[in-house]
Amino acid sequence: MLTINRLSLADAHILIGGARAKAEEIGVPMCIAITDESGQLIAFERMDGGKITSTIIAQDKAYTAAGAKRSTESYGTASQPGQPAYGINSAIGGRLTVVAGGIPVIVEGEVVGGIGVSSGTPAQDHACALAGIDRFPVEV
Amino acid sequence: MLTINRLSLADAHILIGGARAKAEEIGVPMCIAITDESGQLIAFERMDGGKITSTIIAQDKAYTAAGAKRSTESYGTASQPGQPAYGINSAIGGRLTVVAGGIPVIVEGEVVGGIGVSSGTPAQDHACALAGIDRFPVEV
Amino acid sequence: MLTINRLSLADAHILIGGARAKAEEIGVPMCIAITDESGQLIAFERMDGGKITSTIIAQDKAYTAAGAKRSTESYGTASQPGQPAYGINSAIGGRLTVVAGGIPVIVEGEVVGGIGVSSGTPAQDHACALAGIDRFPVEV
Amino acid sequence: MLTINRLSLADAHILIGGARAKAEEIGVPMCIAITDESGQLIAFERMDGGKITSTIIAQDKAYTAAGAKRSTESYGTASQPGQPAYGINSAIGGRLTVVAGGIPVIVEGEVVGGIGVSSGTPAQDHACALAGIDRFPVEV
Repeated sequence: MLTINRLSLADAHILIGGARAKAEEIGVPMCIAITDESGQLIAFERMDGGKITSTIIAQDKAYTAAGAKRSTESYGTASQPGQPAYGINSAIGGRLTVVAGGIPVIVEGEVVGGIGVSSGTPAQDHACALAGIDRFPVEV
Repeated sequence: MLTINRLSLADAHILIGGARAKAEEIGVPMCIAITDESGQLIAFERMDGGKITSTIIAQDKAYTAAGAKRSTESYGTASQPGQPAYGINSAIGGRLTVVAGGIPVIVEGEVVGGIGVSSGTPAQDHACALAGIDRFPVEV
Repeated sequence: MLTINRLSLADAHILIGGARAKAEEIGVPMCIAITDESGQLIAFERMDGGKITSTIIAQDKAYTAAGAKRSTESYGTASQPGQPAYGINSAIGGRLTVVAGGIPVIVEGEVVGGIGVSSGTPAQDHACALAGIDRFPVEV
Repeated sequence: MLTINRLSLADAHILIGGARAKAEEIGVPMCIAITDESGQLIAFERMDGGKITSTIIAQDKAYTAAGAKRSTESYGTASQPGQPAYGINSAIGGRLTVVAGGIPVIVEGEVVGGIGVSSGTPAQDHACALAGIDRFPVEV
């Protein structure tokens, strides 16, 4: 039997809070999704004015980051033409996302969930996801 | 009527064993899928710690390799921008995979199945798939 | 943070072994799938002669049992016309399965995975899934 | 290694011919699909006037009959409310078809393919599929 650590709903709200604060600071209403370490949704918020398409994309960014244990931004680099993961963006029915904005939540070296943000530029999405991570109390 | 040769479950286990041994050697827990010559799943293993996204991707690599009778690595080259198969990565609902790690199993010139490995770098995935093939007893 | 117990690959093989032994006893080659508690595939075997359609159905039975924390057989009853869960069989793109053969794996009151069996009658599938569960060592 | 018998394209044309002749006799333009034993399409004809929706349904009937090794008509009975396979009609993304018109092609006790017919009433579809089977030379 394996023992797995996983974000709780309370944890998810902390992560969303950090991302939302950054989104308000930069003035871009975001869709923010938190998944567990298996990529299953724990919490989601569409700030008033967030994009419709981003309701799905934010979830898929979080799913990708948690499931593949890496940021979607890193996949963006790795999947450029000529790079080893070229073409992976259409995997899993297109759910695997290579646009910045998804980051795994890592505690003591272990992936315990993922955060995905969408509605701004990829750089803005990534910054908000990062702000969520930064808000998250690392357990010592 | 046609007569087709197809991997048995016992054959599939041999292939998985070879890929697993290589994965253990390089220290990367892998998802390993074996399909028959029609791309239908025969056997699958997710080593403890293998990636969630790779449970699907490994199967789709094996499906692609068996079904298209070529390695997914070769599709990676052929589907680069400007190349003839550009864009094929999103075919079949995204199941057609162009990232290395899928190899057809060929016996006496005939495709009898496919192996797909995912969770490491594409080069690691390919090496493990190849190790599965190498383990497979060629019938003389 | 939550702590989750999850089947390991070794556990999955024990479950498959129990189901396979029962399948051999009754003379029906089965597709047998084991998922973790989140419904993600850990291991799969199609016994020689198992049905093609069952490669998917077995996985979806295990996914349903683990994810919904109940047997697919119990969903069969609950989803009859006039019953509260009527129509749920087409949920999640049809993955939610209401035909017997999927059983959650429960250890100390907690779902740690799912087993799904398909290729025989629903009663045979259920019996083989149960045989897998019976083989599983309950931790004391 | 397993050895599998599979319909050839020439065989598929014989089966289509039998179904088409029956369709012409009853005056209903049909969609007729032939798959191999794994449910993969070998040949397809939409007679002038055949239904658009039936281009998919005929294929799924043949897939179901070959893959599950039984007629879709038998699934119609088995999946009625209160019956063991109730709800199976939405399995495999809805591809599993329980409406009459799909029949496995069996030679010497082994499924070698499937025929699926659609555009008429289920009874007409089944009759045409059967006429295809009847045309097929059983090897002695």
